[in-house]
Amino acid sequence: MSRILVTYRVRAAAGEIDALAAGLALEQSVEVADGVVRDAYVREHVMGRVDAVTPCGAQGFDVRVALASATTGFEVAQTINMLFGNASLHEHVVLQDVAFPDDYAARFPGPRFGIGGLRARLGVHDRPLTCAALKPQGLPVDALAALCRDLVLGGVDVVKDDHGLADQAYAPFAQRVAACRRALDAAARATGRTAAYAPSLVGPPAQLAAYARIARDEGATMLLVAPALVGFAAFHALVAAVDVPVLAHPAYAGAARVAPPLLLGKLFRWLGADATIFPNWGGRFAYARATCEALAREARQPAHGWKPVLPVPAGGLAVERVAELVDAYGNDAMLLIGGSLLMAHDDLVGRTRAFTDAVRAAAQGGPA
Amino acid sequence: MSRILVTYRVRAAAGEIDALAAGLALEQSVEVADGVVRDAYVREHVMGRVDAVTPCGAQGFDVRVALASATTGFEVAQTINMLFGNASLHEHVVLQDVAFPDDYAARFPGPRFGIGGLRARLGVHDRPLTCAALKPQGLPVDALAALCRDLVLGGVDVVKDDHGLADQAYAPFAQRVAACRRALDAAARATGRTAAYAPSLVGPPAQLAAYARIARDEGATMLLVAPALVGFAAFHALVAAVDVPVLAHPAYAGAARVAPPLLLGKLFRWLGADATIFPNWGGRFAYARATCEALAREARQPAHGWKPVLPVPAGGLAVERVAELVDAYGNDAMLLIGGSLLMAHDDLVGRTRAFTDAVRAAAQGGPA
Repeated sequence: MSRILVTYRVRAAAGEIDALAAGLALEQSVEVADGVVRDAYVREHVMGRVDAVTPCGAQGFDVRVALASATTGFEVAQTINMLFGNASLHEHVVLQDVAFPDDYAARFPGPRFGIGGLRARLGVHDRPLTCAALKPQGLPVDALAALCRDLVLGGVDVVKDDHGLADQAYAPFAQRVAACRRALDAAARATGRTAAYAPSLVGPPAQLAAYARIARDEGATMLLVAPALVGFAAFHALVAAVDVPVLAHPAYAGAARVAPPLLLGKLFRWLGADATIFPNWGGRFAYARATCEALAREARQPAHGWKPVLPVPAGGLAVERVAELVDAYGNDAMLLIGGSLLMAHDDLVGRTRAFTDAVRAAAQGGPA
Repeated sequence: MSRILVTYRVRAAAGEIDALAAGLALEQSVEVADGVVRDAYVREHVMGRVDAVTPCGAQGFDVRVALASATTGFEVAQTINMLFGNASLHEHVVLQDVAFPDDYAARFPGPRFGIGGLRARLGVHDRPLTCAALKPQGLPVDALAALCRDLVLGGVDVVKDDHGLADQAYAPFAQRVAACRRALDAAARATGRTAAYAPSLVGPPAQLAAYARIARDEGATMLLVAPALVGFAAFHALVAAVDVPVLAHPAYAGAARVAPPLLLGKLFRWLGADATIFPNWGGRFAYARATCEALAREARQPAHGWKPVLPVPAGGLAVERVAELVDAYGNDAMLLIGGSLLMAHDDLVGRTRAFTDAVRAAAQGGPA
């Protein structure tokens, strides 16, 4: 029976690592001491096994554990449980990487649209995609819709809600989605081009389904959802229930002691996200460039026949960095600039146009 | 309009803390630079405010931010988003504490049963409660049911599934719950006393509801659910939909850079857990004694009229530590011993009896 190979980075002294590794293999499978397990089936097919222990310098050791795929029940929440349920309580342990066997991965379809599907829907093939955000929260629906119109007039491909927009009294979800839809339609008449609007869905599972129905009825062509906020299994169930691309937001996901390339790159892809937002280096957040590049690699590289996920660097970016970002990520990315565009206030269309023009100019293969 | 007071512990130099504090207040509310916000309503009623900055020695600073309650939409996932959505991506920031204003707290009923309701259902009033676990996973249903019977014959008040038990092929949920129910009934005929069985529910939201129906039809008197695995909002919705006490498990919750007394004590209470399992000091996990005591305090102290939550210390405990634990937590706790009892193999009933006798002997106010 197949095994999932899970790599934990463990901060430990050389003299204690073998015992810690053996403990991890038990903790993440049978959760009892070795001596408790007498059943031959459990010992052979259920108990975790230490597969390799590799020193990684000052960071300690990489412990690779082979966990039986069967322990996951081939379900999302239980898979997270087996990967990092109790081990998450060990402050010296980071969940570093996961290698799914193909028979496990085959139970999960991955992204339904991926980079190719997003490009086809947006009609953009030869340059990076562009994205901007509606904020701050607290503005009434009309003001958000006006921002949406200006950003589209400025040429962005996707307008997303700020992830802080939920269903607050000052801009209720249904009214906001309807108003932004009207703004998109008006802008499309002016520009001859239809952008996508990704409303933010957050709430309990039943409410997520209700929001998705509203979004569908209003013709929303994308959704913004944070897997760590709504729950990984709820996210996965939502993805399976809607027929539009889903843009994953990293909110609350940084709280995990899980390596960002694994969580925001590989695991969000496993859950079916079509695009994944992450904090780019040099912005408001602290991810290193190597972390961002590894994340983009996990999102896009061939794996299990899953469609590639669109990397969406974000977090305090400005128009001046477009060329650097396109150079780093290539065309198959979507650049997300939020608050920096909004600083332009009455010249929002112009500033947005500067952003989208810069992306066209920087596109690999020459201006599109 | 009311504000939630959120305390972040920030690792920073004295010269940069004021800017970081101001940044946190913006990040967790409007998520744009101060200059972007021109709307008077947003500035007055939506934007976060730095309320206090207090040095806390080598650990940096405690930054207290007042966030508008309205930004949460009074919903669970969005509340987590406002408390720690983007800030979770800052590796130098820990979510340390939250003070809900009463008008916010009044929207959430908290635990439905709490310590008093659990005691009434179990018929135990004058000593700590006892709990043991069914494991290892991989055993067939009959073997788990036999363990359940022996643990009840040994006198425990609550038998819980190992949190690793889901709906795997080797012990499907419905069959397991039915078999354990029969084992409980048989043991009750032998002892004249009915224990509770808490099956483990894990999965996507729709499946959680289905499991809860099965558990109800089999007369389950308690449920085991890990909020961080199933999603906080899904957990909260499940609690509202079932009429039995819910025992919260900390799986994957340790992955959060959220202070354990806040997450496992205060926030799980907010979500409606009736009892909360946590890794006790000196066991397999690394929580300090002061952390455990603070957690129990958050679970039990008067707050918002919410019922107190039963603290459930666990994680590699053994019978020999019963007196120490009762001394530390008093009677209003449930001691959970898992694998250590199972080491007794063929003397499981006897070892369990030693556990439950030790708790009776250590009970405050004298032997019960």
